[in-house]
Amino acid sequence: MALIVQKYGGTSVGSLDRIRNVAARLKSTRDQGNQVVAVVSAMSGVTDGLLKMANELSENPSERELDVLVSTGEQQSIALVAMALQDIGVAGVSVTGRQAGITTIGSHTRGRIEDIDPRYMNELLAADKTLVVAGFQGITQQGAIHTLGRGGSDLTAIAIAAAIKADVCQILTDVDGVYTCDPRIVKNARKLPEISYDEMLEMASSGSKVMQSRSVEFAKKYSVIFEVRSSLNNNPGTLVLEEHPAMENVVIRGISIERSQARVTVKGIPDEPGMSGKILGVLGDAEINLDMIISNIASDGYARHSFTMHSNDLGKAQAALKPLLSELGPNAKVETEGGIAKLSAVGIGMRSHSGVAATMFKALGNAGINIGMISTSEIKIAVTVDERFIEDAARAVHDAFALDKAPIWFLHDKSSWEKCFSLDGMKTFHRTRVALP
Amino acid sequence: MALIVQKYGGTSVGSLDRIRNVAARLKSTRDQGNQVVAVVSAMSGVTDGLLKMANELSENPSERELDVLVSTGEQQSIALVAMALQDIGVAGVSVTGRQAGITTIGSHTRGRIEDIDPRYMNELLAADKTLVVAGFQGITQQGAIHTLGRGGSDLTAIAIAAAIKADVCQILTDVDGVYTCDPRIVKNARKLPEISYDEMLEMASSGSKVMQSRSVEFAKKYSVIFEVRSSLNNNPGTLVLEEHPAMENVVIRGISIERSQARVTVKGIPDEPGMSGKILGVLGDAEINLDMIISNIASDGYARHSFTMHSNDLGKAQAALKPLLSELGPNAKVETEGGIAKLSAVGIGMRSHSGVAATMFKALGNAGINIGMISTSEIKIAVTVDERFIEDAARAVHDAFALDKAPIWFLHDKSSWEKCFSLDGMKTFHRTRVALP
Repeated sequence: MALIVQKYGGTSVGSLDRIRNVAARLKSTRDQGNQVVAVVSAMSGVTDGLLKMANELSENPSERELDVLVSTGEQQSIALVAMALQDIGVAGVSVTGRQAGITTIGSHTRGRIEDIDPRYMNELLAADKTLVVAGFQGITQQGAIHTLGRGGSDLTAIAIAAAIKADVCQILTDVDGVYTCDPRIVKNARKLPEISYDEMLEMASSGSKVMQSRSVEFAKKYSVIFEVRSSLNNNPGTLVLEEHPAMENVVIRGISIERSQARVTVKGIPDEPGMSGKILGVLGDAEINLDMIISNIASDGYARHSFTMHSNDLGKAQAALKPLLSELGPNAKVETEGGIAKLSAVGIGMRSHSGVAATMFKALGNAGINIGMISTSEIKIAVTVDERFIEDAARAVHDAFALDKAPIWFLHDKSSWEKCFSLDGMKTFHRTRVALP
Repeated sequence: MALIVQKYGGTSVGSLDRIRNVAARLKSTRDQGNQVVAVVSAMSGVTDGLLKMANELSENPSERELDVLVSTGEQQSIALVAMALQDIGVAGVSVTGRQAGITTIGSHTRGRIEDIDPRYMNELLAADKTLVVAGFQGITQQGAIHTLGRGGSDLTAIAIAAAIKADVCQILTDVDGVYTCDPRIVKNARKLPEISYDEMLEMASSGSKVMQSRSVEFAKKYSVIFEVRSSLNNNPGTLVLEEHPAMENVVIRGISIERSQARVTVKGIPDEPGMSGKILGVLGDAEINLDMIISNIASDGYARHSFTMHSNDLGKAQAALKPLLSELGPNAKVETEGGIAKLSAVGIGMRSHSGVAATMFKALGNAGINIGMISTSEIKIAVTVDERFIEDAARAVHDAFALDKAPIWFLHDKSSWEKCFSLDGMKTFHRTRVALP
C-alpha cells in the first residue's frame, strides 16, 4: 500500500462533472490499495470572478483582504470534492490550509510555507479517510490567512507529501508530462520518463513552464519524488526526482526555448573595479530581471557587459542606464538588440561528457543559424539566436542529440522504482526499461 | 464615543453597490464619533448557489462539508466590505469567525456559540480599526468549521456585542422595527420604540418572525441592548432591552398572529394518572411541535386534551395517536379541526393590570368572532379563532387596546437612554418622549 498525494488544478475541478471525475479517480487509486490525499485548487473561473469583484470595489484592493477573499475558492472545492467522494462511498474529508497545519511567512498574496504540522492529517489517515486539502493557502503564526501566489497548489501538494511522508506526489495537470522539447515545435519530441530536480529547475528557468521553480526546489530540498501527469488519462507522466548515476548516461535531457528576449550591451567601460556593480545596481533598482550576463574586455581595452532580459523591459533598462553613462566615462555607450530568443540544452550528463557544446554549435551551424551570446552552467548550455529561427534551432539540436530516441540505462534502485511503478498506470512504462547487469 | 455593533443581512450586501452603501453607512457612523464593528451575512444568493451545488453532488451531503462550503459566503462578504471601506478611507479589517474567537459546540449546520475570546477584536479596536466580522460561523475546540443555523448572523452580532462590551447592537434588516401588529394587516399599527426581551420572545414564538428566539434569549442572558432597524433608511428602529418599571404602564405591547394552525382533541380519556404523559409521549416521538396544550374534565367525567399545531403536522398527529386509542379505553376518540389561527396579545403590563382578558374577549365578541381555545402566560393571552377572521380579530384587539396611540411614560434611566439616543438617527425619537416628574 502506498500513500499518494494527488494535486488537481482548477480545470480538473472546473465543473460538478469534473469534480465527480476527480472523485472517481481518487476512488480508483484507493481501490488499488493505496491511501490518497488530494490537494485541489479553486474551480476554474472562481478566483477570477472574486478578483473581478475586488477590482470593481477598489482600484488597489488590500492584499490581506484579497487573501481572505480568494482563499474561499479552494475552501469551496475541498467541500465539494469531499461530498462527491462520500456520494460514491469513499470517506472523504475536507481539510483547509489551517487544518492541514500549514503555517506561512512572507507577504500576503505570496506567502511562503514555513512549516507543516501534519498531526490532524495523520489522525485522519490513521482513520483511513481520504483527505481533500485546500491548495494555495495557509495561515501565519498570528492567524492571518495567506495565499501562496502562482503555482501555490503545486507547492502545497509537494510540501504535504514531505510532511506526511508520502511515497509519491502526483501533479495532475493539462500536460501529460515533461517533454524533451515543446511538442508543438518539435514533432518527435518524447515524453521523459524521469528528470532530475536540477534539470527540471533549469528547464523551468529556461522557459518550460510546467511548474514554478519554487515547487521543484521545495521537492528537491525535502526529497519528494513527484510525477507530472495528465488528469485526463491514465498514462504515466514524468517522474521528477534526485539524480541517480544512470541518469548521467543521457547527455542532454531536454531543450527549452524562451522567446521575446532582448540584449543590452554597455561598451566602452573603463576596466576598473566597481563598474559592473554600478551597472547591475541601476538595473536591479529598476526591477529588471536579467537572464544571461556576459562581460569581457574588448580589443579596444575597454570592458563591455551584455545582458539579456524580456523585451518588455528593454525601454526601462535604457532609461535606467542613460544617467549612468556620463559616470562611466566619455566612451561609454549603450547598444540594444531586440527580436532574439534563447535556446537551452539541459542535462546532468554534461558533467561527465565532453564535446556537448561542439555538437550543439555544429548542429546550429549546419542549419545556417548564427549564434549570438553563449552562457553555460554545469548542466546547461544556452545560446541566443535570431527569434525567427528559434524553432529551426530547437529541431536541429533535438536531432543532433537524438532526443526522440529513448536511452537505455540502469535501474538505479530497484525497490524504490518498483514502489513508484506499482502506482496506477506506471506498469507499462516499467516494462519498456531494460535492466543492464 | 460609543462602540456599536451593526449587523447587515444578505440583502444589505447583496451586490457590489449595496456593499458600497454598507461601507458608506459604517463610515457615517464612525464620522459621528463612534467605533463600529460590522457583522455581515453572505451576499444574498451565494449561500443558495452553494447549497444547490452540494445537492447536485449528493442527495444527502455531509453536514460537516456543508459547513466548510457555506461558511465561504460570509468570508467573501467580509473581505469585500473591508475593501469597500478602505476604498473610502476607512481602515476596515475583515475578521473570520475563527479570528473573532468564536468557539462553538453542538452539531454541524446548527452550532451554538459557547464562548468568544475577543482579544484579537479588542486589539484591532485599540488600533481604531473598523472590524467586519463574518456572521453565522465559528469553530469548535477541535478546529472544525461550524455554521450557526438560521438567524446565525443575528446571534453572532449579539454575542460579539456582549464580548466586546458594545454600547448597543443594531440589527439592520429589511423591516424597520417591531410593530404593535403586522402593518400589512393593521394599517394603523405603530412601530414600537422599545420592547422588553420577554415580550420580544413571546412575539417571536407567536408568529412575529423578526428574529429567532435564541438570539433574543442570548441578548437577555448577557443584557445586550439591541435595536432592530432598517438598513434602507436612517429611521430609529425598536430597542429591545431588559424591562424597566415604566414599561409596565403599557398593558399590551403588541399583537402577533399565527395562521395555518390545527387543533387535535383526544376525548373520552379515563381520569387516571399517566394518561397525559402517554398522549404527549407519542406526539413527541412523532416530532410534532405542540403549541397550546389544554386539558380538562368534561361533563361526562372523562378527561379531554386539546393541542394546537401547524396544520402540516395534522396527519402525522392522527397517525401517531391512532394506535394509542385502544390503550386509552373504549370511549377514547380523536377529533380534529383545521383552518384555525392563533392571536396573541403580549405585554408585561398584564402582570400589574387586571381586566386584560375581559377587554380582549369583549372586543372579539363585539366583532362577532368566536373564540376557540384560550391559553395564557404571565405576559400573554392567546386565543384561537377561525382562520378566515384572524385579520378582523387582530384589528379589533389592536383598537380595543388603542395600540395605535403612543403611550406616555417615564424615562427609566436617563443616562443609558441618552447613550442610545445619541446614536445616529435616534435623536428625533428621543424628543417624542415625555419625561414625567
